[in-house]
Amino acid sequence: MPALGNSDFIKIPSAEVEARLVQVLINHGFSYAKAKTCAEIFIGNSLDGIYSHGVNRFVKFIDYVKQGHVHPNHDPVCKHRIGSIEQWDGKSGPGPLNAVVATDRAIELATKNGMGCVTLANTNHWMRGGTYGWRAAKKGFVFIGWSNTIANMPAWGAKDSRLGNNPLVLAVPYRGEAIVLDMAMSQYSYGALEVAQLKKEKLSVPGGYDEKGKLSQDPAAIKKSWRALPIGYWKGAGLSLLLDILATLLSGGLSVSEISKEGIESKLSQVFIAIDIQKLENFKSIAAAIDQILENYKQSVPDEKGKIIRYPGENILKTRSENLKSGIPVWKKTWEEIQRL
Amino acid sequence: MPALGNSDFIKIPSAEVEARLVQVLINHGFSYAKAKTCAEIFIGNSLDGIYSHGVNRFVKFIDYVKQGHVHPNHDPVCKHRIGSIEQWDGKSGPGPLNAVVATDRAIELATKNGMGCVTLANTNHWMRGGTYGWRAAKKGFVFIGWSNTIANMPAWGAKDSRLGNNPLVLAVPYRGEAIVLDMAMSQYSYGALEVAQLKKEKLSVPGGYDEKGKLSQDPAAIKKSWRALPIGYWKGAGLSLLLDILATLLSGGLSVSEISKEGIESKLSQVFIAIDIQKLENFKSIAAAIDQILENYKQSVPDEKGKIIRYPGENILKTRSENLKSGIPVWKKTWEEIQRL
Repeated sequence: MPALGNSDFIKIPSAEVEARLVQVLINHGFSYAKAKTCAEIFIGNSLDGIYSHGVNRFVKFIDYVKQGHVHPNHDPVCKHRIGSIEQWDGKSGPGPLNAVVATDRAIELATKNGMGCVTLANTNHWMRGGTYGWRAAKKGFVFIGWSNTIANMPAWGAKDSRLGNNPLVLAVPYRGEAIVLDMAMSQYSYGALEVAQLKKEKLSVPGGYDEKGKLSQDPAAIKKSWRALPIGYWKGAGLSLLLDILATLLSGGLSVSEISKEGIESKLSQVFIAIDIQKLENFKSIAAAIDQILENYKQSVPDEKGKIIRYPGENILKTRSENLKSGIPVWKKTWEEIQRL
Repeated sequence: MPALGNSDFIKIPSAEVEARLVQVLINHGFSYAKAKTCAEIFIGNSLDGIYSHGVNRFVKFIDYVKQGHVHPNHDPVCKHRIGSIEQWDGKSGPGPLNAVVATDRAIELATKNGMGCVTLANTNHWMRGGTYGWRAAKKGFVFIGWSNTIANMPAWGAKDSRLGNNPLVLAVPYRGEAIVLDMAMSQYSYGALEVAQLKKEKLSVPGGYDEKGKLSQDPAAIKKSWRALPIGYWKGAGLSLLLDILATLLSGGLSVSEISKEGIESKLSQVFIAIDIQKLENFKSIAAAIDQILENYKQSVPDEKGKIIRYPGENILKTRSENLKSGIPVWKKTWEEIQRL
């Protein structure tokens, strides 16, 4: 966890966090079953070390429930089906619960048809997209999914934010676990910029522009200009635009620009694709094919002596087991707030 | 065209280029029908302004035919089918022809099942991935596709190249034409670095590392170190790795590392996904939904007065019509070589 100092966060056993989160969710109108699934997702994200989209974000989530943007007991419904694609309406239900339904339904469709796609219109923030990649891959399916967001990133050559950072998730089963890439189209999230600023650290690579329009590694300067950098400059900006167009068209939902008019990150559009990779033909097993790729990758010559070349999500299992043992790191202030919800 | 000087290239009417290319292909064992389709793809790429993967690359393509890496009259065959996914063996046939077969078959599967996926093992370089995005989108289908390549990009934090730049294509139909994103995972291709070096130009953003391991905008320094930069640093490296794993597993073909062992960019693995977007439900038409997104995007405030904010591929129609009128720009030396083939 990006610690600002040891006194800023506390470690709490996951069972204790779960009990509290479930209670708070019930207090805010969730059924027990939904509260439990929802709490498990927040806790799973924190256990995996994705602290920005785990328990630390729970207060904001409850705030959206209170404001009526997230409807605790609205279930998503299938609006339209064409073969192995289904378009669902998320009915402004909880983003993580809608995403679980969509992922599981995409898997069902893939089981029948080799591949399946479920799109969601009018859903809410899914928290960490990787959650659904892990879920599908642990069941043996390849997962490709993405979400649009509120506008938070400028087009290439622009000063104002009209693109979302539209996270993209690719996941593949690997030896009972998974390899999961979960990446937003901005080089750094605003959360990451904030932490770097509080820690008075420079970013390791340029993360946006200062107010003079120069590329900058100073998180404070970037936060001032609100000009976050798309990955790969024009390339990430282009990918963000296409992911938004596809999410909007495939779901029949709202685009980044329509979402942004409301000023609230709600009524998002998302895509969930599952592929039944176990039924495909390979000249070697899935695990052996991935082993071969990773073994070669791991032989990379590091640019600094002793540096370890990692693949996306490689550290997650270790972090998870550490956090299960020693407790989930939660911002102290956040945990106090959660007690009062 | 990245001109090094007006004397370096000549403009040739596309009909004249086509006549010559078809003849050369027939001379090298292509049937007339295959020669025609293949020539049209090279010419289409040049017409669209993608000069690096058009006629300028034709000599290299014929070289691969001569060396036996590309078999002119091998047809791809379907090895395995699961619902709406088919795994095909490209039989080392011409990459562009295999890719056309795969695209058209994915469209057929999508017409029946809402979406379709064709994978190709043992295929050859498809030249410009955007070709197949345009092809599917002009027929009214969403296209998602990618290819692996020979290793040409280091992992994040590594000095040696063990990743491919694995181009990714996303395309969507738009008012009879298409919006097509066609992007490799490296910030610049080696072709682009070469042109910048010959023109003695600095890159507009860092494109890789110099031999001291510093990020550099000097194309010559990057070519010396062979350390091209992945888009978004660790993010593009991760995306490249996952695209390779998926292409390898879905096709049952070779990975970047297996391809690289041969030292020849051949026996590639590719994925072609088509979605029958016309049959999905939208609260407005596809064109109107995209118009809304692009109109907002175009209202971006440019960071320099008068700069136009463009979407991926926006200039292609204009370039195409100019080149159709005034002829295709081809390197003079290349055109002379083509005369001798």
